[in-house]
Amino acid sequence: MQEIKKYVDENQQRFLDELFDLLRFPSISADPAYKGDVLKTADFVAEKLREAGADNVEVCSTAGYPIVYGEKIIDPSKPTVLVYGHYDVQPADPLELWHTSPFEPTIRDGKIFARGACDDKGQFYMHVKAFELMQKTDSLPCNIKFMIEGEEEVGSGNLGIFVKDNKERLKADIVLISDTSMISLDTPSLETGLRGLSYVEVEVTGPNRDLHSGVYGGAVANPATILSKLIASLHDENNHIAIPGFYDDVQSLTETEREQLNKAPYDEEEYKKDLGVEELWGEQGYTTIERTGIRPTLEVNGIWGGYIGEGAKTVLPSKAYAKISMRLVPNQQSGKITELFKEHFERIAPKNVKVKVTEHHGGEPVVTPTDGVAFRAAEKAIEESFGKKPIPTRGGGSIPIVALFEEVLGIKTVLMGFGLDSDNLHSPNEKYDIANYLKGIETIPLFHKYFAELSV
Amino acid sequence: MQEIKKYVDENQQRFLDELFDLLRFPSISADPAYKGDVLKTADFVAEKLREAGADNVEVCSTAGYPIVYGEKIIDPSKPTVLVYGHYDVQPADPLELWHTSPFEPTIRDGKIFARGACDDKGQFYMHVKAFELMQKTDSLPCNIKFMIEGEEEVGSGNLGIFVKDNKERLKADIVLISDTSMISLDTPSLETGLRGLSYVEVEVTGPNRDLHSGVYGGAVANPATILSKLIASLHDENNHIAIPGFYDDVQSLTETEREQLNKAPYDEEEYKKDLGVEELWGEQGYTTIERTGIRPTLEVNGIWGGYIGEGAKTVLPSKAYAKISMRLVPNQQSGKITELFKEHFERIAPKNVKVKVTEHHGGEPVVTPTDGVAFRAAEKAIEESFGKKPIPTRGGGSIPIVALFEEVLGIKTVLMGFGLDSDNLHSPNEKYDIANYLKGIETIPLFHKYFAELSV
Repeated sequence: MQEIKKYVDENQQRFLDELFDLLRFPSISADPAYKGDVLKTADFVAEKLREAGADNVEVCSTAGYPIVYGEKIIDPSKPTVLVYGHYDVQPADPLELWHTSPFEPTIRDGKIFARGACDDKGQFYMHVKAFELMQKTDSLPCNIKFMIEGEEEVGSGNLGIFVKDNKERLKADIVLISDTSMISLDTPSLETGLRGLSYVEVEVTGPNRDLHSGVYGGAVANPATILSKLIASLHDENNHIAIPGFYDDVQSLTETEREQLNKAPYDEEEYKKDLGVEELWGEQGYTTIERTGIRPTLEVNGIWGGYIGEGAKTVLPSKAYAKISMRLVPNQQSGKITELFKEHFERIAPKNVKVKVTEHHGGEPVVTPTDGVAFRAAEKAIEESFGKKPIPTRGGGSIPIVALFEEVLGIKTVLMGFGLDSDNLHSPNEKYDIANYLKGIETIPLFHKYFAELSV
Repeated sequence: MQEIKKYVDENQQRFLDELFDLLRFPSISADPAYKGDVLKTADFVAEKLREAGADNVEVCSTAGYPIVYGEKIIDPSKPTVLVYGHYDVQPADPLELWHTSPFEPTIRDGKIFARGACDDKGQFYMHVKAFELMQKTDSLPCNIKFMIEGEEEVGSGNLGIFVKDNKERLKADIVLISDTSMISLDTPSLETGLRGLSYVEVEVTGPNRDLHSGVYGGAVANPATILSKLIASLHDENNHIAIPGFYDDVQSLTETEREQLNKAPYDEEEYKKDLGVEELWGEQGYTTIERTGIRPTLEVNGIWGGYIGEGAKTVLPSKAYAKISMRLVPNQQSGKITELFKEHFERIAPKNVKVKVTEHHGGEPVVTPTDGVAFRAAEKAIEESFGKKPIPTRGGGSIPIVALFEEVLGIKTVLMGFGLDSDNLHSPNEKYDIANYLKGIETIPLFHKYFAELSV
């Protein structure tokens, strides 16, 4: 531990400088306009893996953005850790809400502000630097493989194919991912599950063209009004999701499990204050921790239709749209839920409009084992570097690929995230605390150490 | 009539060319980016009035866009007609739905396609050309004044002040406006009333920043969902507007008046086919003609919030917005209805969001007299040029300034429109039939003739 701390202390400015270089690439996978930047980011990541000491580094082509692979095999008889991360980021809009440019990282109050600072550039790069540390201090205790992709924010569409085609190369004993949060530096935690995702886009068409609302208003169904009515009906008065069959496969937790889960520190007043809301909202009968962890949800991620420019336009629009996503919990299946949504939405649409439901990406929910060697290694590593045993929590987000690793490669995952829920992931002013970044670099070598020791 | 037809025949190509020049100005008053173009349009209109023979032509400054004034006083003892029109146009978006550029007029199937072709450039310019015709053929039978404004599409905010400041200059016996529709060239009609307007923008704020829908979804009110619920509640199951007090001042028509109104030709199958809808929508207990003419309505003109770009973003937005307008019928007051909406919307908003209602422009409903000299003159003019007596109808649109003319100047209005409901006003591919344009130029001199004769 002393040696680790010393190395991190001596190199922390360079660790920050390199991360800043990485953050300057606007690697937005959702927007084709940034294609060149996304590709350059992959090259940069490969270069940094090589510099850190990885062998067989390759920018592997896919039908979409490339996957960066690298490895260090010290001894085939030793255990192998497969590190997964992603170098692509969410779009930065609405741009006007950023206090500083999303792709010019800025430090304020000990925090790095930039798109991708936490999700996931700051987090996966800790692994590159921890690997460098183990290489330079000659302390790498196991084999390590890196697989850093560029399509996580758009559903990892090509990673599945890559994994299937590279089963041998990716052989490992555990997948290690830092793409989640912990409660705080004072209250470290480890996520033991992730929600799945169904993401759809709906289009409601009324008249075949935009109409003058004075001439036709009152006589023709307005798709924005109808879409509002449809969305309004998706939650009942208790904020349960009103899609028939939606909860059928939901795995309920026992009372003991729920009690355990609710032991995590949570201050409702502080939570509301941080979000600037007077009252919370959610499914009746569940706590905030449960609503965001073990219960499925349905959210409108975007809605639009008609005239949305400056001033007033008296139009009765032809079309209205919404992007709607559902978070799924263990036992629910993304494909089935998407189908249920589609059927329901088409069924409830009145005859005076037409609706179309298009599927975006999905992902399956996962529960990671808490009784294996890897989880214990993560617990010990965190306990040593933070001075406290981590609390097990359920993450609300989704990393669709975790279920796939288990299915295709037969490998379980450890979610050792160092972000915070308040890091503004997917929002303006995304940040990552320098302290968390450095603490992560310190903790990761300990994970490898204990994983190697406990695996014997 | 023979002389009129001859002049129109001989000059029709030039009449079209000049209108095309006028249509090429993108005089979008709602969007500040087009300020230069709007100003140039005013100068062009002034120039054309001068060329046609008007005296004292002036581009009158206001706090907003200028009002173009011109006049021909042949004899102060003769009656005076004040022609009102507007040279500004609606925004052209969504641009991708136009078959040809909105500001490069194109003729297809005898129709002129361009933004403003009908509303109102094509219609007010008929008056400029009819005036030229009367001047050149030495047949102007009365005094004529022109007042062509540039802010009709944004609520005529400065016209009221101009009218109050120029009562003497604007003195007239009747206001003549061509900014409405007739049923068809085969079934000419005259509008005898216009609906008023209340136009508001609503903003719903949930959390103080965009959130990750996985981390916070299910625990925090989503403003897009809440806005949908609020909009959904604005119409009840019979599509009555559910704002308390909304209908209190509505003037009901007698059964006889309703029967009379419903005599206008209307083919529901054709109406649905033209709009591409399977079923109509509207307030229970009323026909389409009533719903669009004598009943107040509430329409969502635009809605937006969250991520509306390409692909998928798992955001729980901080804000969602809608533009909502209400058409009002005689006896309702724009200011009062706006206030009722505001109070209602704020009252029904749940505590887990904040709502803000901002007023855009409004206008009062009007009924124009059908028993005066001017209406009879319009009837006779149309009967002579179309060969059929016009049917009186109620227009669904709003020309806020009509109520103001009556209030400030004490002058009634005749709405002699030559557009068609199918002209795509405020929509992509706005058009105006060449036949209607030329027929208008033929009919207008007859109006002046009969108005002068009947006024004696």
